[in-house]
Amino acid sequence: MKSGLSFLIAARRCEISELEQPMRTSALVNVVGRLVHALQKERGISNVFLASRGQRFAAQLPLQVAECRQAEAELRTSFEKLDTDAGHISNGARLFSRIAFVLNGLDALPGLRTRVATMVLTPADATAAYVNLISGLLAVVFEAADSATNPEISRLLVAMFNFMQGKEFAGQERAFGSGTFASGRVDSALQQQWQHLIHSEERCVQVFIDFSTPSLRELWQTSQNQTALAEQERLRRMALSFKAGVLDPNLSQAWFDCCTLRIDTMKAVEDGLADELLQLCNRKIAQGRAELHDQQMILAALSDQTVNASPAAADRAGTTGATGTTGTAATAAAPDTPYGPQVGRSILDMVQDQASRLQSMSDELETVRASLNERKLVERAKGLLMTHRKLSEDEAYKMLRQTAMNQNRRLTDVAQSVLAMADFLSADAP
Amino acid sequence: MKSGLSFLIAARRCEISELEQPMRTSALVNVVGRLVHALQKERGISNVFLASRGQRFAAQLPLQVAECRQAEAELRTSFEKLDTDAGHISNGARLFSRIAFVLNGLDALPGLRTRVATMVLTPADATAAYVNLISGLLAVVFEAADSATNPEISRLLVAMFNFMQGKEFAGQERAFGSGTFASGRVDSALQQQWQHLIHSEERCVQVFIDFSTPSLRELWQTSQNQTALAEQERLRRMALSFKAGVLDPNLSQAWFDCCTLRIDTMKAVEDGLADELLQLCNRKIAQGRAELHDQQMILAALSDQTVNASPAAADRAGTTGATGTTGTAATAAAPDTPYGPQVGRSILDMVQDQASRLQSMSDELETVRASLNERKLVERAKGLLMTHRKLSEDEAYKMLRQTAMNQNRRLTDVAQSVLAMADFLSADAP
Repeated sequence: MKSGLSFLIAARRCEISELEQPMRTSALVNVVGRLVHALQKERGISNVFLASRGQRFAAQLPLQVAECRQAEAELRTSFEKLDTDAGHISNGARLFSRIAFVLNGLDALPGLRTRVATMVLTPADATAAYVNLISGLLAVVFEAADSATNPEISRLLVAMFNFMQGKEFAGQERAFGSGTFASGRVDSALQQQWQHLIHSEERCVQVFIDFSTPSLRELWQTSQNQTALAEQERLRRMALSFKAGVLDPNLSQAWFDCCTLRIDTMKAVEDGLADELLQLCNRKIAQGRAELHDQQMILAALSDQTVNASPAAADRAGTTGATGTTGTAATAAAPDTPYGPQVGRSILDMVQDQASRLQSMSDELETVRASLNERKLVERAKGLLMTHRKLSEDEAYKMLRQTAMNQNRRLTDVAQSVLAMADFLSADAP
Repeated sequence: MKSGLSFLIAARRCEISELEQPMRTSALVNVVGRLVHALQKERGISNVFLASRGQRFAAQLPLQVAECRQAEAELRTSFEKLDTDAGHISNGARLFSRIAFVLNGLDALPGLRTRVATMVLTPADATAAYVNLISGLLAVVFEAADSATNPEISRLLVAMFNFMQGKEFAGQERAFGSGTFASGRVDSALQQQWQHLIHSEERCVQVFIDFSTPSLRELWQTSQNQTALAEQERLRRMALSFKAGVLDPNLSQAWFDCCTLRIDTMKAVEDGLADELLQLCNRKIAQGRAELHDQQMILAALSDQTVNASPAAADRAGTTGATGTTGTAATAAAPDTPYGPQVGRSILDMVQDQASRLQSMSDELETVRASLNERKLVERAKGLLMTHRKLSEDEAYKMLRQTAMNQNRRLTDVAQSVLAMADFLSADAP
């Protein structure tokens, strides 16, 4: 017959196995990060190439494509290694469905590259295709962050996801700015989109800072290339401070270079984040194993003990006062265990410690995850618009973003308003 | 090399395995429900026995204990059958830790019964010990409800948990009222506690009604014993409508009987709920398997196809407009799949369908789970009071309940206020 202690040990084993999962997905997240980084650069180069009608970056493009192919092969290998057997990965349904999407996008890459090389695409269309694929890759990271059950690990994964998303906005700004400079002109609609990218990046980085560790915050502070930052701000000012006008196409290269310097710096911080995440997982697993070992020792010791309940334990149990009806596992009267009062007491302590530890972990986890809900809000608002306004996902997102830009509000605030108006939207429907 | 489609199939397999878990835990929930029912009755009988100083229910008590022993043996067998291998049950850490607590409580039952039989306990202390154990058993049901990932199943589990919790309040009222009638007197403090039990029960039943299906709501309406209900209301009025005073101890039996009739009716509804839950799980699993089969057929068909990308697919991909950066898996440009345009298109459709289905399931799940958060709120408020006021869990719960009663507010509202004051509580600490 399984005893209470054996379930305590089973609970601990589950906890360890729940810690092993973020360890495996962190490895995946790293490889995803490398491919995202390479694709971001390919997107930027393609943009300049297309906007300059093949005059610029014709030599860099095939080099960058080769780098991407290597990162893609690595990622495909990682996918291959994933244990896709049902039930081995919590959140598996969502994670694997994201991966299916990414693989479809990767299969389409060669065709996209042909269309870039033969210049049958506008810079905006090329950007859109890359943005799509990268957004699918980031969704894989999001699912990894959403499935961690340890609050400290979840914290770092939230920091990681937001940092990668912020870096993606920086990458979009590089591509957008490169194309705009190369085209030689800017108007107020382009400027508004540009500003929006800057704000989006800043907001993501702020979440990263909030959820990060002191050492990572310091790495972020010290690693920034101030010269590149100053140059980027100077070029931003040139493009954004006049209503509309002509831009010097030669600045496209300068813009691309200073953005690339900044983004490469960000990749270094991302790698630091990945290292810290790995160390944290290792530490937590080692700690869980040590505690499991202790519990197993006690279980072994117990097999050698006498098995009579003592009157002392019975007395203690009788004096416990009335308790709340919604009380959790932590308010038991001391049980008359078959192990005698001392050992019985220590098992009860362990049960109570474990229950309250799991409880406070779950509370903390809820707080950390609240930040992931922001993203879900936008998804839900989009879904609502798609259903009730018969819009494509694309159109729904553009509608949200345009409203946010027009009203100078955050995207999540607009999403919240849309969801609050759900009843009115439904009333429109037949 | 695994294709996008094979990950789609893996995602579907995970979904099915996520459906099989509530099916297994539902079986466990049923057995828990039977033991809870038997313990509730044992608690009521013990209460009358103690409050009447052994004059009443001396014959019924050992019969009910025997019934409880049988239900306990069943539950222990169910625990025994649980697959405690790490990782096979999501939420395993919390579930197993709850079970460890329950097993400790069950080990202590014989001692508790001895103290009841020898009348060394007050009715209140005996009630407290049973309340504790039953609350541990309901926590097992709560964890089962909290781990379901399908929103429809989660809905029914939430209805089930709240119904069982409501029935437990009804059981507490039976024990409380039995003891009070048997003691021959009532005062305003006891009356206030009594009122609180009635309100708590009504609130839980309301949640059950909100989350239930029409057929279960009808079962609930039609199964109520109106005669027993009228008798219960009459006795409640007698005990509650005067400030304080003397009660006829002979009414203890009448009170116990009409409460028991009502609670037995509730057990029948609980069984109906369990049936419906089982059918729902079966239906969802069958549906998931049928869809998995279709996808596997397509995968098999694909192995026989030509493997060239077509220019038509490439053209289509090129015309997709710019998309949002937070876009999900559903906005891909049509990929140049290795399967030719028709099949490639159908895979993409499947990827998109699956992604948006998972998305909307996750949205709905969030809504359903919000009701579980109420309970978590109270737990968190209790934890906060325990830490900052150096209270036991028991004292913390009593403080919350007393405040709710004094201010005539809901327990969750008080809990929310406590959490909102967290900063002030911390400021008190040294």
